[in-house]
Amino acid sequence: MDQDAVAKAFVDHYYQTFDSNRAALGGLYQDGSMLTFEGAKTQGAAAIVAKLTSLPFQQCAHAISTIDCQLSGPTGGILVFVSGSLQLGGEQHSLKFSQMFHLMPTPQGNFYVLNDIFRLNYA
Amino acid sequence: MDQDAVAKAFVDHYYQTFDSNRAALGGLYQDGSMLTFEGAKTQGAAAIVAKLTSLPFQQCAHAISTIDCQLSGPTGGILVFVSGSLQLGGEQHSLKFSQMFHLMPTPQGNFYVLNDIFRLNYA
Repeated sequence: MDQDAVAKAFVDHYYQTFDSNRAALGGLYQDGSMLTFEGAKTQGAAAIVAKLTSLPFQQCAHAISTIDCQLSGPTGGILVFVSGSLQLGGEQHSLKFSQMFHLMPTPQGNFYVLNDIFRLNYA
Repeated sequence: MDQDAVAKAFVDHYYQTFDSNRAALGGLYQDGSMLTFEGAKTQGAAAIVAKLTSLPFQQCAHAISTIDCQLSGPTGGILVFVSGSLQLGGEQHSLKFSQMFHLMPTPQGNFYVLNDIFRLNYA
């Protein structure tokens, strides 16, 4: 498995989905998945989608600056560390962010998000 | 296990050691450990210490802004996501950074760093 290719494909898919149809992100999480968004913890695909779709902005566009990845151990998991910027609809300036994902393989040969931690980079 | 307490104790110990005796960080890594520092990958405790001690600054002081943590799965691992700033000796301005660690339990009841990814937050 080429972990860099998996990470790149995941990141492209994740942010494209976030920016076009946020509710569809639910398919990337499972019941044991965790999201920590700006310090607030949420568990489970349904609750994570509810959190992401309730964020106080509608239109947004992510631009990715860096993607780093490593294998997380013998379970086939991949850690993906992303930096980038987030442009909100109607706002002039973009917000820098850092986000990490822990991807785990599924029996079907795909990956789901087990861990997701997001932080804005305050200047 | 209180994952938040483990994460906080690790972060305090890690950056205090980094700022006072960087070579001693080797005790926190093992042969399978990986560091990605500003995109450059290094594997194994000895190579990681060589990388960290060869960074082009001597004196530094880390200040931590946020610590987020999650369990990484059934293996007892803990993901720790840190944001903060780094003041280099002789420099007026500090550098913002984001860093993630994947801590794994040892048979002795401690933790070692399996994964470590560091990125400066460019403004």
